Amino acid sequence: MRVLLVGATGMLGTEIKRILEPGHEVITASRKGSDVSVDLSDKASIVAMYEKVGKVGAVVCVGGAAKFAPLDSLADDDYAFSLANKLMGQVNLVRCGIGHVDEGGSITLTSGTLAQQPMVGSGAVSIVNAGVEGFVRVAALELQGKLRVNVVSPGWVAETLASMGKDASQGIAAADVAKVYKRAVDETMTGQTLPAAKT
Amino acid sequence: MRVLLVGATGMLGTEIKRILEPGHEVITASRKGSDVSVDLSDKASIVAMYEKVGKVGAVVCVGGAAKFAPLDSLADDDYAFSLANKLMGQVNLVRCGIGHVDEGGSITLTSGTLAQQPMVGSGAVSIVNAGVEGFVRVAALELQGKLRVNVVSPGWVAETLASMGKDASQGIAAADVAKVYKRAVDETMTGQTLPAAKT
Ligand SMILES: NC(=O)c1ccc[n+]([C@@H]2O[C@H](COP(=O)([O-])OP(=O)(O)OC[C@H]3O[C@@H](n4cnc5c(N)ncnc54)[C@H](OP(=O)(O)O)[C@@H]3O)[C@@H](O)[C@H]2O)c1
Ligand SMILES: NC(=O)c1ccc[n+]([C@@H]2O[C@H](COP(=O)([O-])OP(=O)(O)OC[C@H]3O[C@@H](n4cnc5c(N)ncnc54)[C@H](OP(=O)(O)O)[C@@H]3O)[C@@H](O)[C@H]2O)c1
Repeated sequence: MRVLLVGATGMLGTEIKRILEPGHEVITASRKGSDVSVDLSDKASIVAMYEKVGKVGAVVCVGGAAKFAPLDSLADDDYAFSLANKLMGQVNLVRCGIGHVDEGGSITLTSGTLAQQPMVGSGAVSIVNAGVEGFVRVAALELQGKLRVNVVSPGWVAETLASMGKDASQGIAAADVAKVYKRAVDETMTGQTLPAAKT
Repeated sequence: MRVLLVGATGMLGTEIKRILEPGHEVITASRKGSDVSVDLSDKASIVAMYEKVGKVGAVVCVGGAAKFAPLDSLADDDYAFSLANKLMGQVNLVRCGIGHVDEGGSITLTSGTLAQQPMVGSGAVSIVNAGVEGFVRVAALELQGKLRVNVVSPGWVAETLASMGKDASQGIAAADVAKVYKRAVDETMTGQTLPAAKT
């Protein structure tokens, strides 16, 4: 199957590419350094990406950013950035993907456990993650029979914690998170929020 | 206690005013026909409202709109409208309310069961409702000890179903929804999504 992987150069994207490649043809996308260039915050660039890539069997998105900062330092622009980027970027990836994904194919987005479990600093991130999950439930319902739509909700990733100088043993290995994306591509679920956190 | 009620002229607002008035001084707000005029989609008008009203013990919001339409007819503007109105309007009501609500006071927002239970047509509404709930969890955490923040999640209201020509017995009475807002004002919970749906 041809799989379009948005955010392919990132920490999770690299592991997802590695786990998908034995069985699938992975087309990579990100702003820089991928097969196709896309900026999720720019809907026209999403449309152009789909036109360039042609039909695919699945889309996986692990790209898109949201601003992490305490409430008293989150500015109007930080909310606007977060909503336009990780939230509406992923919503538009689904909206614009209709007709570019094979019948019965899938789109898998990314949220994160901050959707449900708040942290000081996650004001904008929690809105975005919960919003993506809310959208996925509706999109899966409305597109039933045509397209599967799911979202993976990672917890803190071990490698990310390590890069922040924190205790990596509190996180889930990126390779284990990648397995959850692979299930969303290869299995038959739709409308699901798939947890990928250290238990 | 002085309670600022945003959306006071609406179907739920009217019932909430009725149930709060015996014990509290209710100051009404909406775009038209209330003690104070406010447009939630305009942050400056929220700031002006708080300045005009002075300190309150609680804020309750049952105002704000989001566009209900199937995915294939929801336009970019419909998402932008919904995010700016019911989502960022309520987020800004909390952000701008800090310092205008008495220490230990509360802000109570509104989501809706479409956050978790999708319907054909709820693409934008489900993003907004889930996003508000995600934000409330973080705001309650960050403002702990200063301000309680909760959200009520109504199911279909009987009177609304009746006005749509549908079976009102499938909905919850507006007066019963109002009781849940009253609990959020009078009791001590914070960070909660309070269900108010027919069981
Ligand atoms: N790592 C964690 O602990 C963790 C935990 C929970 C959730 N998550 C979520 O998982 C996702 C991926 O995380 P990660 O740690 O792998 O991130 P990462 O290492 O920063 O990688 C992000 C990837 O997305 C691309 N990207 C960023 N902004 C983009 C945009 N506007 N348009 C298109 N591509 C864009 C980046 O490439 P370019 O910069 O070249 O565009 C890169 O390929 C994020 O949504 C993150 O919130 C991560
Ligand atoms: N009724 C239901 O079945 C149901 C179910 C689940 C959730 N909810 C939610 O509950 C809330 C209230 O519902 P409702 O049925 O009572 O609505 P409603 O009867 O339409 O009343 C809405 C109220 O909000 C005000 N309002 C609307 N837009 C505003 C804005 N931009 N700025 C300030 N005020 C604004 C309106 O007055 P003006 O027009 O003068 O501003 C009115 O006072 C909504 O968030 C709705 O999504 C309702």
